[in-house]
Amino acid sequence: MPFEIDSLTLDSEWKYYQLLMRFQDKLDRAINQNRSMVCVGLDPDPGLMPSIGILEFNRAIIEATMDVTCAYKLNFAFYEVLGSEGISILEETLRCIPQNIPTIGDAKRGDIGNTSRMYAKALFETMGFDAATVNPYLGYDSVEPFLRYRDRGVFILCRTSNPGAHDFQDPLFGIVAQKAKEWNCNGNIGLVMGATYPDELKEVRSNCPGMVLLIPGLGPQGGDPLLAVRNGLDINGTGAIFAFSRQILYASNGADFARKARKAAEALRQQIESLI
Amino acid sequence: MPFEIDSLTLDSEWKYYQLLMRFQDKLDRAINQNRSMVCVGLDPDPGLMPSIGILEFNRAIIEATMDVTCAYKLNFAFYEVLGSEGISILEETLRCIPQNIPTIGDAKRGDIGNTSRMYAKALFETMGFDAATVNPYLGYDSVEPFLRYRDRGVFILCRTSNPGAHDFQDPLFGIVAQKAKEWNCNGNIGLVMGATYPDELKEVRSNCPGMVLLIPGLGPQGGDPLLAVRNGLDINGTGAIFAFSRQILYASNGADFARKARKAAEALRQQIESLI
Repeated sequence: MPFEIDSLTLDSEWKYYQLLMRFQDKLDRAINQNRSMVCVGLDPDPGLMPSIGILEFNRAIIEATMDVTCAYKLNFAFYEVLGSEGISILEETLRCIPQNIPTIGDAKRGDIGNTSRMYAKALFETMGFDAATVNPYLGYDSVEPFLRYRDRGVFILCRTSNPGAHDFQDPLFGIVAQKAKEWNCNGNIGLVMGATYPDELKEVRSNCPGMVLLIPGLGPQGGDPLLAVRNGLDINGTGAIFAFSRQILYASNGADFARKARKAAEALRQQIESLI
Repeated sequence: MPFEIDSLTLDSEWKYYQLLMRFQDKLDRAINQNRSMVCVGLDPDPGLMPSIGILEFNRAIIEATMDVTCAYKLNFAFYEVLGSEGISILEETLRCIPQNIPTIGDAKRGDIGNTSRMYAKALFETMGFDAATVNPYLGYDSVEPFLRYRDRGVFILCRTSNPGAHDFQDPLFGIVAQKAKEWNCNGNIGLVMGATYPDELKEVRSNCPGMVLLIPGLGPQGGDPLLAVRNGLDINGTGAIFAFSRQILYASNGADFARKARKAAEALRQQIESLI
């Protein structure tokens, strides 16, 4: 009877279970538990935040949103800009996130094989992320070291949400999606698909059934929520998560920032649910 | 008379001069001063190093090679794998590099515009690199925040040296080179061109005269030195630097590692010179 074991054993079992649990299972559980496809981007920008410490800010946002989010995504740029101290804050932030919510290291790394191994180790072992974003420009041997971690998720940039996506991703994004399917032996690949390109989103969704799509670009970037939900979800109404950062983090820059962040996350969760 | 000013003024003037000096000028000076196109990659791998601290190792390599190299390139993966402590070591390593030798932050970053601004700030302001490598997959607005730093060098990945380069860079590398030319209003763009693809190197060299090429892929990766020099240099015999890491750093893993590293760097410098 699992509920009769003592807390020490329960803790060990839980850790063991965590080790066995694949990213996608952990994500599915969080989506179901919190009835949410909202991924909160922890991208602290001192210019927009209330005037408190970054770690304090992150901790408050996490505590306020941990039951309305399906994942936390940390974009490394916002921490690297503070140098080694920023990476310390990133590491501390990860420790504030409850074990049942998956974490995504949004680092967009990619290098030649032996170097990508170091990046994969940094993200999955040193820092302990459940998933990471990777840049595919260098090809298979740059992505493969990440894929080897079968229990972790690997979101390959496919069609990004920014205006510059046109420069090199037309028509490359389709080839990237195709290659991602071929490389997906471990079933741990997902794709980053910007909501700002709904037609491309539709195409990739239909070509890659069952693959989790990480969809940024709603909110300030101007992606249409209705099209993002319609075109991004699989036929069974799953398979996509929607990343929000500024809309949630900076809903207020006053003392009520955490409460307002929660309200914003709840509203976004509700909006997505209503569109399914 | 500049030599009569006191040391405080000299120091300030030197710093002022450094601020004014563009990356390419600094690089040209180092190439001429040390008669070297050898860029030393400071990629410390505890599995291959002698058993001393990483900072101690880097410092010894720098002291042994500072008059035979034209630049130091630090690949972030080897530091990130150690978490925030690794980034501290990277920052300390930068302080060991003499001011007259340019530093390249080999981070291969790239993100949407507002995030790339943070990455550019991290590399050029927080850490103070003279140049950085960037990944072009996200297009112009991901590269532009780096280009704005007119005095810094921006090496755009064009044709990388790894086997996976085939996956997406055919024929994209040519388009990347073309775009790089169009984007080069500030004259601070260079390209990363792997020596393992000599034909592509020749094509890009001929299409982008005057642009500095950062050429990895010689040594263990198997690029042909003769073809790299012939195809990589501009008609006036300049415009390329050759990146070496493992061959220099791990020439010995005994107590004589620094002396052997210097010997290896000297030999590579000599080899390149003989092929021009």
